[in-house]
Amino acid sequence: MPGKRQYSSCDVPAAPGRKTLDRNKMYPFQDGFRWKGVRVEKYRADAHDWSDIIRQVLIGPEQKSAKFHVRYFELSPGGFSSHETHNHEHVVIGVRGKGRARLRSRNIEIKFLDVLYVRPGSPHRFFNPYDEPFGFFCIVSAKRDRPRPVRTKKSKSGI
Amino acid sequence: MPGKRQYSSCDVPAAPGRKTLDRNKMYPFQDGFRWKGVRVEKYRADAHDWSDIIRQVLIGPEQKSAKFHVRYFELSPGGFSSHETHNHEHVVIGVRGKGRARLRSRNIEIKFLDVLYVRPGSPHRFFNPYDEPFGFFCIVSAKRDRPRPVRTKKSKSGI
Repeated sequence: MPGKRQYSSCDVPAAPGRKTLDRNKMYPFQDGFRWKGVRVEKYRADAHDWSDIIRQVLIGPEQKSAKFHVRYFELSPGGFSSHETHNHEHVVIGVRGKGRARLRSRNIEIKFLDVLYVRPGSPHRFFNPYDEPFGFFCIVSAKRDRPRPVRTKKSKSGI
Repeated sequence: MPGKRQYSSCDVPAAPGRKTLDRNKMYPFQDGFRWKGVRVEKYRADAHDWSDIIRQVLIGPEQKSAKFHVRYFELSPGGFSSHETHNHEHVVIGVRGKGRARLRSRNIEIKFLDVLYVRPGSPHRFFNPYDEPFGFFCIVSAKRDRPRPVRTKKSKSGI
């Protein structure tokens, strides 16, 4: 439209005339638990004690002013994440299917919109013993320490 | 059970023998978009330019180490939030029904699992022009400035 500023489908207007690091942004939800404008990534490249997970970073380093990041993880049936601990907290919100978190020796069931707070320093792992994909949001501080692997007999055997 | 430590339904075990500010915690999702262990609150008491909203603080000041807070807001049909701006960002995730955000002069539709990033300093308001409740998560930094009201002709008239 002549005379009207054009935006991509994911950009929404911010205040004109101001230089800022970030823009308002919309990531529309799409079929198959994908978000428009967000790419599907490998869970992590720096560890190997995990299986069958993908990651979509909805709010991440691209939003330079953001104090926290929002990621979506999805574990295929039988999938599991690294057994790890770190000094930052996780907030996990189940959104697709159901799965479990192992917090020390206890398994916690996570279903649709259950909210789990994993406090700093608590060893944890997520896994999916069910027949459907298990997807959840995981929110973390933008400034955070690197996860440390937890070595136990149980972690060596997968779950 | 004798000899076994008891937890409330929402507490899950953290490392024994360590004194920490926080505990791992599960907030199970319940019918009617409620979470067990989370109380339903008034949206805000320090402003009056809003209508028909409730708030549930899932992750808030109770988790003293948390660097961010996760709240659930629900707008009844016709409800709207304060027209405001602040220096912290919002991340909004639609989870119940659908509604809209006004960002400057543009209305952005928010549906199930759409993710909206509202950058620092962007005036905004949420409203529900539909017949069903509109519920969303709103994630904010734990350290944040106080919202400032946006005075416009439109904001005086509600939406």
